[in-house]
Amino acid sequence: MEREELFRKISVENDKKMVLLVLDGLGGLPVKGKTELETAQTPNLDLLASESELGLSYPIAPGITPGSGPAHLSLFGYDPLKYEIGRGILEALGVGITVSKRDLAVRGNFATLENGLITDRRAGRISTEKNREITAYLNSKIKKIEDVEIKLTSGEEHRFVLLLSGDGLSDQLSDADPEAVGVPIAYARAKEDGAAKTVRIINLFIDRLTKELASFHPANTCLLRGYAQYPAIPSLKELFKLKTAAIAVYPMYKGLAQLVGMDILETGRTIEEQLDTLKKHYEEYDFFFVHIKKTDSYGEDGNLAGKVSVIEAFDRWLPAILELLPDVLVVTGDHSTPALLKAHSWHPNPVLLKSAYQRQGVEPAGKFSEKTCAQGILGNFKAMDVLPLMMANALKFKKYGA
Amino acid sequence: MEREELFRKISVENDKKMVLLVLDGLGGLPVKGKTELETAQTPNLDLLASESELGLSYPIAPGITPGSGPAHLSLFGYDPLKYEIGRGILEALGVGITVSKRDLAVRGNFATLENGLITDRRAGRISTEKNREITAYLNSKIKKIEDVEIKLTSGEEHRFVLLLSGDGLSDQLSDADPEAVGVPIAYARAKEDGAAKTVRIINLFIDRLTKELASFHPANTCLLRGYAQYPAIPSLKELFKLKTAAIAVYPMYKGLAQLVGMDILETGRTIEEQLDTLKKHYEEYDFFFVHIKKTDSYGEDGNLAGKVSVIEAFDRWLPAILELLPDVLVVTGDHSTPALLKAHSWHPNPVLLKSAYQRQGVEPAGKFSEKTCAQGILGNFKAMDVLPLMMANALKFKKYGA
Repeated sequence: MEREELFRKISVENDKKMVLLVLDGLGGLPVKGKTELETAQTPNLDLLASESELGLSYPIAPGITPGSGPAHLSLFGYDPLKYEIGRGILEALGVGITVSKRDLAVRGNFATLENGLITDRRAGRISTEKNREITAYLNSKIKKIEDVEIKLTSGEEHRFVLLLSGDGLSDQLSDADPEAVGVPIAYARAKEDGAAKTVRIINLFIDRLTKELASFHPANTCLLRGYAQYPAIPSLKELFKLKTAAIAVYPMYKGLAQLVGMDILETGRTIEEQLDTLKKHYEEYDFFFVHIKKTDSYGEDGNLAGKVSVIEAFDRWLPAILELLPDVLVVTGDHSTPALLKAHSWHPNPVLLKSAYQRQGVEPAGKFSEKTCAQGILGNFKAMDVLPLMMANALKFKKYGA
Repeated sequence: MEREELFRKISVENDKKMVLLVLDGLGGLPVKGKTELETAQTPNLDLLASESELGLSYPIAPGITPGSGPAHLSLFGYDPLKYEIGRGILEALGVGITVSKRDLAVRGNFATLENGLITDRRAGRISTEKNREITAYLNSKIKKIEDVEIKLTSGEEHRFVLLLSGDGLSDQLSDADPEAVGVPIAYARAKEDGAAKTVRIINLFIDRLTKELASFHPANTCLLRGYAQYPAIPSLKELFKLKTAAIAVYPMYKGLAQLVGMDILETGRTIEEQLDTLKKHYEEYDFFFVHIKKTDSYGEDGNLAGKVSVIEAFDRWLPAILELLPDVLVVTGDHSTPALLKAHSWHPNPVLLKSAYQRQGVEPAGKFSEKTCAQGILGNFKAMDVLPLMMANALKFKKYGA
């Protein structure tokens, strides 16, 4: 039996509440002997850790550094190597576009065309402001090609996302990007028969855009690549019979949550506002995904003190979460972003799981850190087992087999 | 290479002896700070633990609570999600019926038919004694339908198991159970072409039984469901070249052992008698599965003290097993049955493995418990790897690859 078939079979509904608190990029590496978690003053997390099951979870597998997409899929209980989220979709989610099953998302660059040749693949990196102006103009001019709706969304500088909405679209076509300068526009070509319509639309779009932008030099044409359709992921409702909600600030994480069927709750930009949102909607759902971004941002900047300060801010808000008395609470990261590396890393995530049905480790952890998690009773496991463990602890899984 | 293909390829025969001692439902959860194992006075187990490799094993996967069927398959080295044991087969094993490859096992209820409608799906829960009487009568009246032999075995109250023996039987038919009252008999229907014969036999059987029981109101018809054929599991002999024997008291565990090709040794109902059986047959086999049931029974009852007392009784008999000097000894459970939960649970099994080729942990465990096993040198692993580890420690696996 497949893993997901098993979940469908054994999951049951009850009124127990589960909260998954994800501090993005939480795990770290020692700088002057101490990781970010070890440096942070976290009296509340430390007390909780001494009363919880601890472990370390691999986002994908030992040695594999994940992007945010697979890392979150894994935390949501999916095998991250089974479902691939196309780059165009992630890009669309990142700029806050709602993507549906009829859509094809495509990454685009504005580019420069002179005498029939591409002379700059980034249109001189035009300003984001200029990009917005051009994009608004194009959206007013090109609304539909055949029966397919067309929508452009600005990204930073020369980047945009093109969203096609219609029936019979395919992602099986070649990039419309010559990947070189001094050559003509590279039109898309079909990789399989079913892609003919999409190829036609894409190439008509390039010509229409190029015509509309005739006077917009240096941004007078475009390159398109990374076609991606909405991934066919079964929802958390289908797999686990859960009513789920996401409380996230950044578009990509809201988008990832939406891909697995979570409701996206309106919230503010601070941890405090996120917790208010959790309290406000606490009765409406079985499962909450709360995403805190700044740990990762500071990690990427190599700013250990900044990352520590976000962990400490989170720690101050932890008691307010505990007051809700969730039946199962997990505090973890989606991946590690050690300030030392200024990047995502392959190191497993510290995991803390609190429930009424937990075992105790050899001695109370005393501290929530990579080290104490390595000694924890959960051992090393895969992050895709976090949600099944939460389900079990919430008594939402029945027995498999007699 | 598939896991089982690997085992077939690398397993070799030698005269080393392996003993797998399974205390059913052994793992627990803390009540007033201590699990069942932590509460029990187990000087012999504790001494053995300090000289053994320890670990925690997942019966299926993190978060998954297993029934006895998959939990034992896993301990016998099989992937429990690869082989499913149908409910009818388990029911048959549970009442001590020997099932073979030509058989189809079906769960039955006696039910009440009035004016052509089912009015009670359990025939007023007739007594087990009455059930035995009816079943004996039916066995004397219905011995064969076409070329298929018919055998009924009483269960508790209104339940029975129907065993069909013949060629060309299938389990691909719908339940002959309306799952409602006030409706007529629901005859079986084929789910695939090959099931036509079985459907005919089942429906003829229902009519014959209903006719024979005309004067037996309220038990004057039956409902049938959970058709199951003997699962096509390769034997331990085929996979591991082992001569294996089971020393179990309860029918289901004897049955599960039989499914993987073990000889079932006659034994008494006490641990003492089980150990006498082990001693008596010690020279005849390479591998013994000794199953002790009562730890699970007390766990299911929520009787922590009862479960503790069985663990302590086992501990007193442990030295007699050690005197046999088995080359590889494992003490574990098939799953956890914490008295706290009064049910099987998802928590991994404490595992103790003693052999001449073992590594030492950081420090002697001092105690055999969930905690010390969590710190053990075997770490967290899948229960289906227990038998391969035993094989390796018995030098019954040769090198894979040059």
